[in-house]
Amino acid sequence: MSDTAYARTPRTVPTRSRDRASWDRAAVHAVLDSAWVCHLGFVADGAPVVLPTIYARVGDALYLHGSTGSRPLRGAGADEGLPVCVTVTLVDGIVLAKSAFNHSVNYRSVVAHGTAFQVTDPDELATALDALVDQAVPGRSADARPANAKEAAATAVVRLDLDEVSLKSRTGGVNDDEDDLPLPHWSGVVPVRTVYAAPEPHPSTTGPVPGYLADFVAGELPC
Amino acid sequence: MSDTAYARTPRTVPTRSRDRASWDRAAVHAVLDSAWVCHLGFVADGAPVVLPTIYARVGDALYLHGSTGSRPLRGAGADEGLPVCVTVTLVDGIVLAKSAFNHSVNYRSVVAHGTAFQVTDPDELATALDALVDQAVPGRSADARPANAKEAAATAVVRLDLDEVSLKSRTGGVNDDEDDLPLPHWSGVVPVRTVYAAPEPHPSTTGPVPGYLADFVAGELPC
Repeated sequence: MSDTAYARTPRTVPTRSRDRASWDRAAVHAVLDSAWVCHLGFVADGAPVVLPTIYARVGDALYLHGSTGSRPLRGAGADEGLPVCVTVTLVDGIVLAKSAFNHSVNYRSVVAHGTAFQVTDPDELATALDALVDQAVPGRSADARPANAKEAAATAVVRLDLDEVSLKSRTGGVNDDEDDLPLPHWSGVVPVRTVYAAPEPHPSTTGPVPGYLADFVAGELPC
Repeated sequence: MSDTAYARTPRTVPTRSRDRASWDRAAVHAVLDSAWVCHLGFVADGAPVVLPTIYARVGDALYLHGSTGSRPLRGAGADEGLPVCVTVTLVDGIVLAKSAFNHSVNYRSVVAHGTAFQVTDPDELATALDALVDQAVPGRSADARPANAKEAAATAVVRLDLDEVSLKSRTGGVNDDEDDLPLPHWSGVVPVRTVYAAPEPHPSTTGPVPGYLADFVAGELPC
């Protein structure tokens, strides 16, 4: 990897729409930092399995969360590791064209291939657990009781180093065929956004919504 | 499969949090009908690959869209098929607990295992293409030019019959430990929703926003 871009490999260079692909490190990180749920793929008994999982990015590593009892993580020992594919997708808009064929989606999606290893170092595990909480709500880890020894032992985290990774995206307006433009159908883009509603406190929480949380809820992100 | 529930199999019965799992047909369909982007997993050269893909549900089948040039669909011939895992995830809320350990996510996720086959029957392909457009924006297929022969030939669709499928979900409030309740940290749930912004018409579109589209944009869905 260079400082500014991930190396291209056969499986990170798409066979089509190559102009929508990027290996730019900052662009990849920007997408990863805009979400907190990924889809984790692995192979079990020869068949593919895809499960939603929370994650955090720390530098050039992704940390993925799971209980020690969960299926994929049992296979991700500290030594041998588990081959995985981690995909993070943000949907930005629905592109409605005059023709069914030219309908499309505005999106950004990062796909990372590699081998995930279970995190066993206590300091790294503590860092990862804080990062997992802060990835969803920045600043949250400072406003929660950290895991005690029993809880840390019951929490499995795996690390995937970002190495073989790419971004695909589509942006912009609709691409109608010239011949279709006179058709009467509505054509354009419907933007899609994720928003947060007012926090719903537990009865034991009587104070105001903390600043970091108010800031978070006031923002919005692509889906 | 019974009329009301999908059969349980070793890979659709989770090894943990089994109380969060369901095989109810209507519940599975309700989640599938609330989204239009899935994550498609397959195995390529022995390694897992996960790609975002649009889909539509028609009865007990999922149709997945892809160009004939795309990697997974080349392997999904009409005869041999491609083993896949299709996962649809809706994020409903972020659960912030007094302890980092009890943080959680409110979500609904359907995971379907099986073999995808390329759709070759022209009538079924036409039905699937309409369904793919209508899955994103209900009613849209009637307001677009259908695919002509050249476009249909350039569009690959695969079908996955819903057979080995399950739903996992978490709902409700935060589950704080009794000992943690006196802690000063904010505790509760932040709801997450997907919303649509005002449609942005192409310059060639001069009429008003059609009724089906106005209704769609006025709605909102979990992410």
